[in-house]
Amino acid sequence: MLKVVLIGTGNVARQLFPALQGSGKAQVVQVAGRNPAALSHFSRHTATGGLDGIDPGADMYIIAVSDAAIPTVSELITDSNKLVIHTSGSVALEALAGPHRKGACYPLQTFSKDREVDFREIPLCIEAENKNDLALLRDLAHALSDMVLEVSSEKRRSLHLAAVFANNFTNHLYHISHELLDREMLPFTLLLPLIRETAAKINQMPPFDAQTGPARRDDQAVIRKHLQLLENQHQREIYALLSNAITDTYAKKL
Amino acid sequence: MLKVVLIGTGNVARQLFPALQGSGKAQVVQVAGRNPAALSHFSRHTATGGLDGIDPGADMYIIAVSDAAIPTVSELITDSNKLVIHTSGSVALEALAGPHRKGACYPLQTFSKDREVDFREIPLCIEAENKNDLALLRDLAHALSDMVLEVSSEKRRSLHLAAVFANNFTNHLYHISHELLDREMLPFTLLLPLIRETAAKINQMPPFDAQTGPARRDDQAVIRKHLQLLENQHQREIYALLSNAITDTYAKKL
Repeated sequence: MLKVVLIGTGNVARQLFPALQGSGKAQVVQVAGRNPAALSHFSRHTATGGLDGIDPGADMYIIAVSDAAIPTVSELITDSNKLVIHTSGSVALEALAGPHRKGACYPLQTFSKDREVDFREIPLCIEAENKNDLALLRDLAHALSDMVLEVSSEKRRSLHLAAVFANNFTNHLYHISHELLDREMLPFTLLLPLIRETAAKINQMPPFDAQTGPARRDDQAVIRKHLQLLENQHQREIYALLSNAITDTYAKKL
Repeated sequence: MLKVVLIGTGNVARQLFPALQGSGKAQVVQVAGRNPAALSHFSRHTATGGLDGIDPGADMYIIAVSDAAIPTVSELITDSNKLVIHTSGSVALEALAGPHRKGACYPLQTFSKDREVDFREIPLCIEAENKNDLALLRDLAHALSDMVLEVSSEKRRSLHLAAVFANNFTNHLYHISHELLDREMLPFTLLLPLIRETAAKINQMPPFDAQTGPARRDDQAVIRKHLQLLENQHQREIYALLSNAITDTYAKKL
C-alpha cells in the first residue's frame, strides 16, 4: 500500500481524498494544509497537520494547492527519495522545486465543494521524470479512473486551455442566458433540456457538425435584432464576437 | 382529431412530424414544401405537396420554415377560418401575413437531421391571438411535451436569445476546444466527461455559483500564458473577452 500525504484542502483535495482512500492502492496517512478550518473536513478520517508539520514518512506527496503556491509548497519536501506530484493543468513539472522525484497527475474535471463526482469517469493526465515513477503513477491512476493518459507538460497545458473553453467559458455563457431569462422573469429550468442536448449531441457528431443558429446560417437580420435586445455591453460584445467567429468558421470551410 | 398541414421539411419539421403523428390529438394530413427531395422523407407516411398545392381542408397549418420565409409562406393560406402557427423563436405573431387566425409554438431545443430528440422533454412556448386558439394550442402542446409555457412574442424572442448563448455559442466553444486538442493530436473524447459535468452541475446550482477557472480566481499569470498559447486571432479575442467578462462579474458581486 502506497503511503500518501495529500497537501491542500480545496476542491481537488476534497474529491481526491475519498478516491485515494477507496482505491485499494494508496492510503492517505496525512492531509496537510494552511487552513485549520478546511483541515477539519479530513480530521475524522486521517491525520492532519500544518505545512510546517508534513509527515516525512510517506512514499508520495500529492500537492493540490493553487498554481502559484506549488513551487513554495514543493520545497517543503526535502528528501530526495520521495515522489512529489502536483495536480495542476497549467504548471510544468519543473515548477516543482526541491531535490525529490517529480511528477504530475492532472484530473480533467471541474470540482465544486458541494458536488460529488465519479472519479472513475475523470481522465487523469499523468507525467513523471523517470520510468519507474511513471509506472507507479500509472498504476495508481488506473486504480482511481478508467481513463489514464500519459502527456507531456506541454500537452497538459493545451488540455487545460481547451478545458477553459469547454468548461469555464461555457459556464459563463450559461450565466448570461440565466441573466437574460431573469430579466424576463422566466425560469432558467426552461433552458436545461437544451443545455443537456447541446452537451449530449457532441457524443455523436463533432461540434463542427452540431452547430446551428443564426450565425451558422449567416442570418444577419436575426443577429441585428439580438444585438439590439442586449442592454449589457459585455453581453453585446460576446454576442458579436462569437457570431463573427461562427460565421467565419463556416464561410472558410464551405 | 385535429387535421394538420405541416409546411417545411427542415430539422424542425422532421422532428415535429413523428411527435404530431404519435400525439393522439393531431393527424398530419399533408407535408408541404419547396424541395421534392426533402419531401420524400415524409411521403411514405403521409401526403406531400408543393407550396402551390397546400391542402385547404386542414384545421391547422404549422409553418416550420426559415424566419425570412414565414411572411410569404403564411400568405398562401387565404382562408380566414384556419389557424396558422409558426415555430420560430425570433419572429413575432404579426409576421404571419394573411386573413387567418395566428399563433406560434416555439420548441426550445436544437434539432439536427441525424439525431432524434425526445419531444416530451422539449419546452414548448405557445402564443395565440385569441383565447380559443390558445386553448387549442395548449391542448395540442401538452399532448407533445411535458413542459408547455404561454409566452408573448417579446418573451419568446428573449428565450431565443438566451438559447443562442446556451446552445449556439456554447457549441462553438466546444468546437474551439476540439481544434485545440486536434492541434496536439489529443482525442476530443477526453473532454466529454468535463462537458457533461459542466452541463449537469447547473441542475444543482446556478451557473454563477458553478463558475471555476483562472478568470474566476483572477489568476492573470495563467490567463497570460493561455493567451500566448493561442495562435488563432479569433480564439485569442474570445479568450480575452470571456475572461474579462468573468473577472468583472465576480469583482462586481464581491
